[in-house]
Amino acid sequence: MTAHILTIGDEILIGQIIDSNSAWMAEQLNLKGIQVTKIVSISDTAEAIREALDDAFAKTDLVLMTGGLGPTKDDITKKTLAEYYGAGMSFHEETFERLTKIFARWGRETTPAHREQCFMPDNAKILTNKTGTAPGMWFANGGKVAVSMPGVPYEMKYLMEHEVLPLIEATFPGKPITHRTILTIGEGESRIARRIQDVEENLPDYIKLAYLPNLGQVRLRLSATGNNLSELKKELDTQVALIEARIPEFIFGYGKDTIEKVVGQLLLENKKTIGTAESCTGGLVAHRITSIPGSSAYYEGSIVAYSFGLKKKLLNVAPEILKNHGAVSEETVKAMLDGLLANLGVDIGIAISGIAGPGGGTPEKPVGTIWIAVGDKNKMNTLKLQLGKSRSNTVKYTATKALDMVRQFVLEKA
Amino acid sequence: MTAHILTIGDEILIGQIIDSNSAWMAEQLNLKGIQVTKIVSISDTAEAIREALDDAFAKTDLVLMTGGLGPTKDDITKKTLAEYYGAGMSFHEETFERLTKIFARWGRETTPAHREQCFMPDNAKILTNKTGTAPGMWFANGGKVAVSMPGVPYEMKYLMEHEVLPLIEATFPGKPITHRTILTIGEGESRIARRIQDVEENLPDYIKLAYLPNLGQVRLRLSATGNNLSELKKELDTQVALIEARIPEFIFGYGKDTIEKVVGQLLLENKKTIGTAESCTGGLVAHRITSIPGSSAYYEGSIVAYSFGLKKKLLNVAPEILKNHGAVSEETVKAMLDGLLANLGVDIGIAISGIAGPGGGTPEKPVGTIWIAVGDKNKMNTLKLQLGKSRSNTVKYTATKALDMVRQFVLEKA
Repeated sequence: MTAHILTIGDEILIGQIIDSNSAWMAEQLNLKGIQVTKIVSISDTAEAIREALDDAFAKTDLVLMTGGLGPTKDDITKKTLAEYYGAGMSFHEETFERLTKIFARWGRETTPAHREQCFMPDNAKILTNKTGTAPGMWFANGGKVAVSMPGVPYEMKYLMEHEVLPLIEATFPGKPITHRTILTIGEGESRIARRIQDVEENLPDYIKLAYLPNLGQVRLRLSATGNNLSELKKELDTQVALIEARIPEFIFGYGKDTIEKVVGQLLLENKKTIGTAESCTGGLVAHRITSIPGSSAYYEGSIVAYSFGLKKKLLNVAPEILKNHGAVSEETVKAMLDGLLANLGVDIGIAISGIAGPGGGTPEKPVGTIWIAVGDKNKMNTLKLQLGKSRSNTVKYTATKALDMVRQFVLEKA
Repeated sequence: MTAHILTIGDEILIGQIIDSNSAWMAEQLNLKGIQVTKIVSISDTAEAIREALDDAFAKTDLVLMTGGLGPTKDDITKKTLAEYYGAGMSFHEETFERLTKIFARWGRETTPAHREQCFMPDNAKILTNKTGTAPGMWFANGGKVAVSMPGVPYEMKYLMEHEVLPLIEATFPGKPITHRTILTIGEGESRIARRIQDVEENLPDYIKLAYLPNLGQVRLRLSATGNNLSELKKELDTQVALIEARIPEFIFGYGKDTIEKVVGQLLLENKKTIGTAESCTGGLVAHRITSIPGSSAYYEGSIVAYSFGLKKKLLNVAPEILKNHGAVSEETVKAMLDGLLANLGVDIGIAISGIAGPGGGTPEKPVGTIWIAVGDKNKMNTLKLQLGKSRSNTVKYTATKALDMVRQFVLEKA
């Protein structure tokens, strides 16, 4: 079973908004065993809508549409859909009553434009939207279904969960599909591919493997399609275990985990607190740690010491270390870590110093030179990175690497 | 002039990632006067790619593709494109040399899989990617152009800015279009619209005004299309001046400025240094200040004090203030600011404390309650915000607001 998603309206085409609806809908459909084979964004003109529907129905039996249902005159989806099916439009009393009630709650009265909004295609099943004014519509014709929903994300989500997904399940009982995603860090796509080559070559033909790389991380996604969901899941477990055995040191999580979330869980489990002493990352590691709800249970605080002066004052880095080795050196990050552990009283610390660029590089220490120290009072691990010239990528990659060093440090000690 | 955008790969179709590339590309094309009429996401199968190209070229002369260019075998875009144009594939020495250099910098050697990645379609103009391993490709055939780029956002952006957009301008010279963007902060879309209503109503018909709102900021983009570029620019200057006169207090910059960049320039001009004392924003303000190259000239450092203990220890906040007023209070942020100014020796400081959620709210101080203090030894401005339940939006909005308070503080004093 496949489906297409159709997004109607100019906001996406001019780059004004990012289409987050489609990803959410695709994920929901996947969980029901329905594979989305195409996502299309078009303008809200009758011609574009008609063509997109013809294209979609040539390939699939299910089209989910969002957008183009508001009261303003550029929203012509509803009229176009009625015409597409050769259906008339009738005033839908129930929708008007609901709208009148909503407006009464806001202390307003309905206008003729609102009555206009309540004319509905005669062949549509009307899907009640309890989160907004425009209802959804379900069009079934010769085994093919088109669904129209408003583009406002929470309205679309309400209609999907309460109306559309149950109707889809009843109309198209389908072949299950299921996924497992392995999250890796610290190794590139092609080297991972080499390490798991035999697993990949021996995958059953109903399981697909995809590599999804992004700034020092690679996600490995296994997708299985078949008739028996529990057997698919068992086979995925087997394949995941084979991959795990090949690259155990690079795997930090599964599914929607993030490195900051995994590190947070590890710290919680091991009852350890953490703090950061950052120079070139300028607070990004702290920000990523605290982006996790509940991080106050293990996160104490951070010192961002950009200047020589603050490295001395807040982190007790001895002037002779800075003088002899420079701010970007193994000696300095170790001293920063010492100072952090002493001044913040945290169990584990991260210290980072580097040259993010574009200025500040020297022949000896070019832009992209980074030192990281991670450890506690008894043990420190250090790492030197030699990264590229993009300030923003260097800072992001360094933050990810530092968080992974914490993960490894906690695992070694546990 | 129109274009289609084609996104290749299963990540978007299964809802694993949100397609943010297309919105960015659409905006860039719009700025060049090219209207995106369709955005399509498809699977990385040869059939889907061929069909999508046929569909696109039936309607438009320009197709921009992203995704499907990595070294692993699920990436078949390149081969399919060669076949589509009936072209052979040859080893591209330059690309392999570049790849070998990148790997050498990482202390690694290339593998046979990497050599494989350097076979390129004979009819493609190779676009050098200085931010990653996979180059872009430009296919021109009978006045129609297809461009293939990697899906990693920063790689795509690099190629668009340095290779693709200049080539598009040279290949498809269009009617001049020019833009001016006014950046505002601190006022909503509809209230700004009311304040500049007469300017908007009297705009010449070749100038369009778009409102682009995003988390506390609204960009006003004026786009002028016509034959005489210098006249268009003069008319835009006139309209910008009219808008400036209506809402001077909300305008912080123009074009690609960011609030952190504008604040940095103001601090440099006024020879002031800055530091931050952050609780709920967890280092984001520091990270945004230091994301600006050269920020070390005015940025000293920051203290992120999540816990009560560190607020006392690093920022000298008196225990009775925390006890009597709570960590999220005007008194506490003022005390944090005092401590910051004393301990870091900076001229101007930002202190923030709040409840980002989802936990930690009380009936008196619900989730989303934030206090900000900005000032120096002589004067402090404070602000209370009551924001929503999204942790991530609350933190981002607060950081923006705090930076704007610095801008206003420096301007008041100057």
